[in-house]
Parts: sequence; C-alpha cells; structure tokens
Amino acid sequence: MNENMINRTWLDKAKQLAPELHQQKVYPERIVNVAPYESAFQGWGVDPLGSASQLYDQILKKGDSITLDFGTHHVGYLTLSLQNVRSNADAPLRLKLTFGEMPCEVGEDFKEYKGWLSRSWLQDEIINVDVLPGTITMDRRYAFRYLKIDVLETSIRYDVRFTDLYCTTVTSADLALVPPLREGIDQDMANIDRVAVQTLRDCMQTVFEDGPKRDRRLWIGDLRLQALVNYETFGYNDLVKRCLYLFAGTRLEGGKVGGCLYEHPEPYVDDIYLYDYALFFIATLYDYYEATGDRDTLEELWPVAYEQIHISLARLDEHGLVQDDDTWYCFLDWHDELNKQAGAQAVLIYNMRRALKIANDLGKSEHEAWIRVQIQRAMNATLSYLWDEEQEYFISGEARQVSWASQVWMILAEVVDAPIARKLLERLEHNGNAIGMTTPYMVHHYVDALVLCGEREKAMEQIRKYWGGMLKDGADTFWELYDPGDKTFSPYGSNLVNSYCHAWSCTPSYFIRRYFS
Amino acid sequence: MNENMINRTWLDKAKQLAPELHQQKVYPERIVNVAPYESAFQGWGVDPLGSASQLYDQILKKGDSITLDFGTHHVGYLTLSLQNVRSNADAPLRLKLTFGEMPCEVGEDFKEYKGWLSRSWLQDEIINVDVLPGTITMDRRYAFRYLKIDVLETSIRYDVRFTDLYCTTVTSADLALVPPLREGIDQDMANIDRVAVQTLRDCMQTVFEDGPKRDRRLWIGDLRLQALVNYETFGYNDLVKRCLYLFAGTRLEGGKVGGCLYEHPEPYVDDIYLYDYALFFIATLYDYYEATGDRDTLEELWPVAYEQIHISLARLDEHGLVQDDDTWYCFLDWHDELNKQAGAQAVLIYNMRRALKIANDLGKSEHEAWIRVQIQRAMNATLSYLWDEEQEYFISGEARQVSWASQVWMILAEVVDAPIARKLLERLEHNGNAIGMTTPYMVHHYVDALVLCGEREKAMEQIRKYWGGMLKDGADTFWELYDPGDKTFSPYGSNLVNSYCHAWSCTPSYFIRRYFS
Repeated sequence: MNENMINRTWLDKAKQLAPELHQQKVYPERIVNVAPYESAFQGWGVDPLGSASQLYDQILKKGDSITLDFGTHHVGYLTLSLQNVRSNADAPLRLKLTFGEMPCEVGEDFKEYKGWLSRSWLQDEIINVDVLPGTITMDRRYAFRYLKIDVLETSIRYDVRFTDLYCTTVTSADLALVPPLREGIDQDMANIDRVAVQTLRDCMQTVFEDGPKRDRRLWIGDLRLQALVNYETFGYNDLVKRCLYLFAGTRLEGGKVGGCLYEHPEPYVDDIYLYDYALFFIATLYDYYEATGDRDTLEELWPVAYEQIHISLARLDEHGLVQDDDTWYCFLDWHDELNKQAGAQAVLIYNMRRALKIANDLGKSEHEAWIRVQIQRAMNATLSYLWDEEQEYFISGEARQVSWASQVWMILAEVVDAPIARKLLERLEHNGNAIGMTTPYMVHHYVDALVLCGEREKAMEQIRKYWGGMLKDGADTFWELYDPGDKTFSPYGSNLVNSYCHAWSCTPSYFIRRYFS
Repeated sequence: MNENMINRTWLDKAKQLAPELHQQKVYPERIVNVAPYESAFQGWGVDPLGSASQLYDQILKKGDSITLDFGTHHVGYLTLSLQNVRSNADAPLRLKLTFGEMPCEVGEDFKEYKGWLSRSWLQDEIINVDVLPGTITMDRRYAFRYLKIDVLETSIRYDVRFTDLYCTTVTSADLALVPPLREGIDQDMANIDRVAVQTLRDCMQTVFEDGPKRDRRLWIGDLRLQALVNYETFGYNDLVKRCLYLFAGTRLEGGKVGGCLYEHPEPYVDDIYLYDYALFFIATLYDYYEATGDRDTLEELWPVAYEQIHISLARLDEHGLVQDDDTWYCFLDWHDELNKQAGAQAVLIYNMRRALKIANDLGKSEHEAWIRVQIQRAMNATLSYLWDEEQEYFISGEARQVSWASQVWMILAEVVDAPIARKLLERLEHNGNAIGMTTPYMVHHYVDALVLCGEREKAMEQIRKYWGGMLKDGADTFWELYDPGDKTFSPYGSNLVNSYCHAWSCTPSYFIRRYFS
C-alpha cells in the first residue's frame, strides 16, 4: 500500500524552479588503446595512438574497434555523423558503443560482469543505422570520458568513416560563476579544487544527482554536501531550493523524508527511509538559509524539518538511545560491519542543534524550548551509555563497537568539546582495530570534524592524501568509492558499476574555499 | 569517380509526388511459443499459449522471454508502455527485441547466422529504458508478424509488466480503394489475391520497396511488377509516376537507368547496372501510360526510355546478339548456373516492342522506324543463333544452355507465335535437364508467358500450385524466394535473411484481376 504524502503545491514550486541546462559541444581529444597494465589504476592503462582528428581519416571495417578519449569526464548526448566508403551502404550499419567513465569500463568485457547492481548501469548500446551518410544523436544521456566503438556489421560492399563525432554536454552549473581561488594556493590544492568543481558540475542537472552515471537519483545525503559546495562555487541556490521542495513535496508514510527521490516520469519518493538521511533535511534547510537568508522558504519548510525530529525521537528507547537493529536503517558509510547506533544518535543531535537555531531564528519559542529538552535528553543518554570511559571511545551497539564513524559523528554533534575531540581523533589514528571509513562521504565528515575541533592542518593533510590520491590515480572527477588499500573496492560486487563522478566526493572545494583560503 | 547523371527537375517532381503514409494501430493477437518442429515449414512451429490480452497481466522478470504474434505481417513502428512492479525501478531496464516476419527469425539464434548478406538485416535491438513507468516508440521501422521480447536486465528490486504494446503500421496503399473480386471466384484464389494485395500494401511506402524488411530499395524489376498489380488494386498511380521520375532523375554514367535506387538521405542511384533492369524502364513507362493515359509524363520521360535502347544495343555483337560474359550483367532470376544471354536478348526485344508503341503513340516516326529496324535485326540474330532446331529450344551462351528463363522470355518477347510457344512450354514441362526457376519473379514471367500464349488454365494452375504452396506453408505475405523442393533455399546463404514480404511476389492479383475475373 502506497501511503506516501504528496504536496502538490510544493511539487509545483519545485517544477517552477527546474533549470534550463547549459549545453556545450565537446570533441574527443585522442585515439587511445586501453590495455591491461599491472601497475595502472585498477589494472587498465591508456596508451595514446594519435590525435582525435585522425579519426576522420580512418576507414573502419566490420570487426574494427576504436577507442576515443574525450580528455576528461563529460555528461551529455552523443552525436555521430557517418559516411559509407568504398561503395553504397546497401545494408544497415550495426555499431556497439561503450561509454566509460574509467578505462576499466572500456577495457573489460561486460559479459563478465558479476556485480549485484543491475548490469543495465553499464553504459553500452547496440545501434543500427539505416541511412548513410547520416547523423545520429542518441537519446540517452551518458557520463563518460572514454568511448569505444565496435563496428559489428557493415556489408560486403561498404566500410565506414566518421565525419563528425561530439558530445553535447549538459549541466545546470555555470563554470563562469565560480569565484577564483585566492592567489597563492598551492597547485596540488588548486588541482583538487578544479576536479571537485568539475565533479559537482557534472552532477548538477535538473536536480543534484548523486552520480550522472549511477544512480542519478536525488539523495539527501549527497544533496546536503553538494549544496555546501555549491554555495562556495556555482552559487546556484535555486537548485537547492528546488530539491528541498521536492523532498518536502513527496514524502513517505507518516511524513518521513525519504532517502532519495526519482525525478521522472513525475517526482516521487523512493521507499528507502534512512534515519540519518531523513534528519539531514534539517541541516540542508539550515545551511540553505544560512547561505541565502531566504526566510520564506525556511518558514514554509520548517514544519517538515520539525516533524523529522518527532519521527526520529520515536526510535529512542527508554534511556533516550537510538534503538539498534540488523536492518539497513541508517547509512553513515558503506561498511558491512559498521554498527550504526552511535552514528545515528549523533546525527540526531547534530540535526536537532540546527533545528534549534532555526526555531530561534523563526521566533518559535515553544519549539525551541522543546528541542532544547530533547537535545539534553539525547546528550545525557549518549554520555551515559555510549561513552566508554575505559577505552575512551564512543561505542556502538550491543558489541560495543569502536568505529571512526561513531567518533567523527559524536564530534560533529558537539557531544564533546574541541580539546577532547582532538585527543579522541589522535587516539583513533593509532587504533588499528577501529572500524574504518570506506567512502569519500565518510571521509568528508572526518575532515569536517578535524576542522570543527581546530585541526585545519590535519584536515588539509587528509584532503591532500585522500582526494589527492584519487587525482594521482587518474580521477577527472572524484569517485563514489576510494579505498587506497583496495583500489577495486566496490560495495556492489564490481568496480565497473562504481560511480566515478559522485556528488558526495566533491567537498574538497567546500573546505578549500571556506576554510583554507 | 562518380559520373552519375542527376536531373534536379525530375527529382523535384518525384519529391512533390511523395505520399503521406496511412497509419493504423495494430495490436498483438496471441502469445505464442515458437519451437522446432520437424514437419513445420523451415522446421519452426508456432504453439498458441494464450490471447494477447494476457500479456498485460504477466509479470516479467529478468531472464523471462515472451513471443507475441500480431496475427499477420505488418510494417511499422513499435510502441511499448511498461510499468515497474514489486518496487521502484532503481536501474534501467534492458530489453532485447527480436522482430520476425517468419517463425525462424524468432526461433533461431542470430549468433549462428552464417549468411553472406549483412547480419544487420536481422531485426533485433537491445534497448535501455531509463524511466519507468514509461512509453517508448522505437525510431526504426520493422517488418514483422512475430515479436520476441527478452528481459535482459531489471534490478533486484523490480520486475516489469506491459501496460500497452502496439505497432503503428505505415503504408501508402489504401485497402479501401481495392475493387472487390468478381463474385464466384473460388476461395483459394480469393485467399491468394488477399495475400498478394497485402504483400503489395506492405511494400508500398514512400516508394515501391522490394521488401520492407530487406532491402527496402526501389528496384526497377520489382517496380514494374508492383505497378502492374497496383493498376488492378490500389490504383495509386502517382506512386508509379514518382518512381519513374526517381529512376530518370538519378542515373548511372552515360545515362543508364540503374538497377535500384536509395531514397535516403537524398535519392541516388546505386551502382548496379543490369541489362534487363535498365530496359524495363521502357516497359514500366509503357504500362504506366497504358494505365493512366498520362501523356505528359510519357513525353517527358521518353528520351530516357529511348536512350536505354541505344545503350543496350551497344552490347550486341556483329550478329546482333547480346554479348555474354561471366559477370552479373543481367538478372532474370537467382540461379547460379543460369546463363543470361538468351534472356537478355529476349528482354531487349520485349522492351523494344513497347518502345515502338510509345514512339508510335507520340508520333515520333523517325524513332519508330529506327526501332523497327533494331527489333528486326535482334529477331533475326535470335532466330539464327539462339534457336536450336534439333533440340527445339532456345539456347543461351557458349554451352548452349537450355533454361526455363530463356524459353519464357523468348515467348514474352514474341519471338515465336502462340502455337509454337504453347508447344515449347509443354516440352519444357517434361524436360528434366533444363535450368529451372527459383524466384516468384521468374515464375511470374512463366505465368505471364502462359497467359500470352493462351494457356490461361495452366497459368491459373501454376498460381494455385506455387503461390498456393506458400499459403499452405504459412505465408501472410508472399515471399522473395520459394523453392517447393528446398524450403530453406536462399541465394544469400541463410533463409533468415530472405525477405518474406517481397514485391515481385505480389503478382497473382494482377493475373487474377486482369485475366481470370
């Protein structure tokens, strides 16, 4: 039974805020050969074979294959112009097109794909062209840097030659609006910033997508971070507003904000409820107001934010602790062993603190008083039950698990003050047993915690190491997943299906521009 | 070097005559299972599984396959409406669609295709659907009765269900304009007529295509026969006119009428010159004038027709005989061993006879006189060198080959009179060594020869046997190739690529309506 709550007025408001996309024609830069290399990232190396202009001289016969490198990551629509040569095209042309964000996608055979996410995420098409010479613009959007073209069929009478080939990129972000970095910032940081901005650009479409290759939904966890980077870069604040109205306009049973939305055919909430993600509606609204001063929106959407606190508090036990279980009730990070209780508790406090400020700004004194009580109760429970005096760590779940996620989120929730937080994080660095971090999303929060407790140098160091590591490994846009110790890590059973341009990975620009400039 | 001759005025005239296509929505009738049956035509049987309405109740999971039977042959564009079930479509849907004119096409695996025509003629597509629920109309046109749908990928969260599925058929023919058959015609003949008319209808698009599946070109050999049937049925004479202007407007070097034309991207002649086909421009123009009395067109295109005689005569040797060689210089029939010399000679005479009538009608007395001389010279050479007194057969080539094609064409060229022709054909029936016929195109000419020499009963018998045989073997539209002794016969190395709705096979309606009614 679908008991979702729809608010048409808000969805209409979101519709009115839908952006027109900027388009740009981009051409391939090189012809390359992608081949296995043991030392290359994920085992696939890229050898240049020639400049892309040579494409137009090349006669392609049945069985031929060519791989084009567009120089960097793009999101858009491919247009191909083809001509028959030798003789007339007396039969359709059949091509296979394989789009890859990364070399692995054009190197490996998709037939071998064993991941548990649908193979349909892998970007390949077989097209039949009835008329030559001809121009085809494909109707699907692709996210890619590499394009492999296999000529599956011509006829005995003809071969083919490309006469034009380009991608019409789309984004709602305007690079011209990004303020320059302050002078004197070092080149490494400037490079990281550039790639982070490009990551956000490619994810900014008619909503803030999580990844333009996969899964293209509007996730609130990604939205919150994208919005923070957007305020420092593109400043396209109406897109944040649109996304807030979308989340408010289509919610789950009981008014819960969903973890993610589909935009088409009509915006609707997916049936994934995540404890932390629903609460982030509050922080995202708060950040939006901070950045824009748009009090009307704050006022209109406050009831949704306030409601999320009530919904979240209902999960607390008699002590005021988030009740743990074995389901996927809270995200925090992609880690099979991570216990979510402490993180969830911290995210609750983190968001209640922002709700408190909103209530205060709006002059809702009753709300404010009530929230204050709830924060205190959650804080008390946290310190009584989730702080392990002996280990000097926050623990989570029945097994009293120590994890990076728990410590980081407790710091962000200001459960401990800065001096204690600094020591906590330092101890953690030397704790080989704590459950680690796997996603840039979690590493973002670690960096944020470092900044919060005054460790800006360490925060910068972390960005240099982690995002800089992706850069050294060939990132044109930052990735959904990056484990320096296991570079083919995927929570989905195959690194082919990882997203290599992923919203939650674009936050270095937020830190660099807000704190380090 | 392309030295083709283009006449823009004539191509513009053809453009102005381009028809609007009639559209009609047709729905599948049954869900079927296509399975190997030794006794079935080409080894593939069709078992009904249920009515097509059950399609909309069926939940399709990854790996599922369903085959729909549209009840008869159609040409058009497929529209699919799909809905996700169980949960949201969190990944694209990937389908494989296989369109078959005949059961073999949905029964056999195209991976095993070994024909020498391009495999791209086989009608299958892989499509990725990003938005569900959604409706997709495919941009390519298909010719089919059967549609097999394989669900290649969904995701672990959802399955799919069709909510609508239909084909928007296209044709420039209007069935409502076909005159009823005379009353009392027997049911077998009425059925043959119905299927012949449907064959022509599906081939009538913006030109008279040879086959809507393959190869969709405008061939003059097919055009001539389609035009004859059209005059007796749809009466869409402007389409014939358009095709004549196309052939006249884009010709080969030296003004030769090409064997076939491409319509897109702009009409252009293919580089196939065939001795017989170029000459048929004359007969087609003559027939068109006979049917329509359109003297302006006759007058305007006469120079092209007249020129073909000059071009064709240049191939004669000093005796006035078509010079034979080993190339594919003349079509006549798909038969590897058939020698073309006698047939070519006869086709020359056949067309000069029609040219003579045109010249007379147009009052071109000099042309008339000249043509009369040429006919006489070709006749003399034929009777002197190609008639074997001992065998009492026309012979062809250095090896003095006896074939059905040679005899039939000599009769149609009126090289012998009716009583001799009758005896010749009777002798042929008992000659096991003569090179036989393989296509409905050649059988048409045999029937035509029977009619010409007064053997109407035998002509009808032949139609009942040959086209009736296709009907018994399951034809919804008549086929490009039909060898009752070898039902998987294909000149292309695989019966999968044969065309099963083929223009040159639609002529029973011409005979039935013109001679037997």
